[in-house]
Amino acid sequence: MAQASIGDSEFDRDTAVTQREPGVYDVELSAGWSIIRALNGGYLLAAIGRALGDALPHPHPFTVTAHYLTPSVAGPAVIRTESVRTGRTLSTGQASLFQYADDGGEVERIRVLASYGDFDTLTDDVRTAAKPPGIPPLEHCVRASAGPWTPGDSSLLDRLGLALDPATAGWAAGRPSEKGEMRGWFAFADGRDADPFSLLLTVDALPPTAFDLGLPGWTPTIELTTHVRCRPAPGPLRVSLATRNLAGGFLEEDAEVWDSTDRLVAQSRQLARAPRVRPPRPNAGAGN
Amino acid sequence: MAQASIGDSEFDRDTAVTQREPGVYDVELSAGWSIIRALNGGYLLAAIGRALGDALPHPHPFTVTAHYLTPSVAGPAVIRTESVRTGRTLSTGQASLFQYADDGGEVERIRVLASYGDFDTLTDDVRTAAKPPGIPPLEHCVRASAGPWTPGDSSLLDRLGLALDPATAGWAAGRPSEKGEMRGWFAFADGRDADPFSLLLTVDALPPTAFDLGLPGWTPTIELTTHVRCRPAPGPLRVSLATRNLAGGFLEEDAEVWDSTDRLVAQSRQLARAPRVRPPRPNAGAGN
Repeated sequence: MAQASIGDSEFDRDTAVTQREPGVYDVELSAGWSIIRALNGGYLLAAIGRALGDALPHPHPFTVTAHYLTPSVAGPAVIRTESVRTGRTLSTGQASLFQYADDGGEVERIRVLASYGDFDTLTDDVRTAAKPPGIPPLEHCVRASAGPWTPGDSSLLDRLGLALDPATAGWAAGRPSEKGEMRGWFAFADGRDADPFSLLLTVDALPPTAFDLGLPGWTPTIELTTHVRCRPAPGPLRVSLATRNLAGGFLEEDAEVWDSTDRLVAQSRQLARAPRVRPPRPNAGAGN
Repeated sequence: MAQASIGDSEFDRDTAVTQREPGVYDVELSAGWSIIRALNGGYLLAAIGRALGDALPHPHPFTVTAHYLTPSVAGPAVIRTESVRTGRTLSTGQASLFQYADDGGEVERIRVLASYGDFDTLTDDVRTAAKPPGIPPLEHCVRASAGPWTPGDSSLLDRLGLALDPATAGWAAGRPSEKGEMRGWFAFADGRDADPFSLLLTVDALPPTAFDLGLPGWTPTIELTTHVRCRPAPGPLRVSLATRNLAGGFLEEDAEVWDSTDRLVAQSRQLARAPRVRPPRPNAGAGN
């Protein structure tokens, strides 16, 4: 198979938006980006991000906040954008993704508020106190694959080359570290390199930190804010997730994405519902 | 002076919103919350947060994102809210703060997207890996006061009891640590205790981390997202700010707020423009 490239890949085809009228875009959501029966929230955000990048005068997502309202399903959707403010170096816009109810009415799935800029106009200065995560080389990591923890359609995993740091993969064998961490390598299976839009997927692609906290259940995102900080270099990405505060049934999950030149290319934080913990059944194994 | 209380304090009076019609609120912005000639972004957000808390069926801000569009000034403003989705445990809403142009037209200052819930319905479980910041006792901290680094109206400082950890206050004497950190105690000068709305001010009230990076200039917020995680206990708050990545003229600033019971009550992150660094003048002292 020929190596895919930015603009000619599964990800590009499945996030392509078609302008219906100024500011309004049609998109066909693909089931190929499902995880645990649902479409991945980062995939959906990448499509919305592309629509805003077309609608606004600046091309690149600098800071993007999404509130997830109702579950999206594969099939047609429409993205309605609004230009909120246009400045010299930044523009702010809003977008909503809608799907169709049985009666033909529109149901809002996701609402987004974002500011866009142009990475090609920024200076090269970098002062980063953050350190890249210490993830073992790819060949020593654990390929993320479907299992009992991913019931239903999880074809997202076929589209990605995700390999987890063994130190944060123990949950799959019933031995979570309980530190609330998840680290790994991210790449597209078809070889497409990263760009600012695909980073909107990358921050939400690893298994949730809740798994490493010993809470292997559905962790729905309420709100996800991503700062894309520069255009990523070609090559695989390293992703580090951490949860520091699980309280009252909610948790935050922070992500950092590092490119092959050791540059911090994206930072995100989401607020999610913690999985409901089922009491262990009698006779259940240690991993349950 | 009698001790102020939640509901009867400067903060409450200056963030009070009056319903004009369903979902539309008038507010009189007070110059008393100015810092370096501008109204503090957290103060403005608290007023918007109160309007949304009235308009939505759930009372408390769980996650609030604000994009700052144009500078607000003291005087009348109108907050227009929209209910985006109402659920059983969470509601999502949007709000815009407008002021008036010379021709009477409305100019949008801030746009907000937020999800609200009810802290009184949450469970008491807490699993926090984060540790409270090691800030010296209040009497060993440095009272934040106006100085050459706060030109113009900085009356915000009169309304707050802010005391900085000496380790992060060196910038005021020309010796920034260059770590990008800021830590201190936060209280209202009139003794009002914290509540979920005042935390929207607290996350944005300390001097910017840019000062500690040796960049003592205006650091305008582009976007600020705050997660309020519970109702704070009475007593002073500890606030810890950190910037880990200054790149291309932008920086992120993370805040954590801890209450008197050592509970992490709010987490925030903002994307801001880094101050433009002026080249040192010949003959200028080491601190310039």
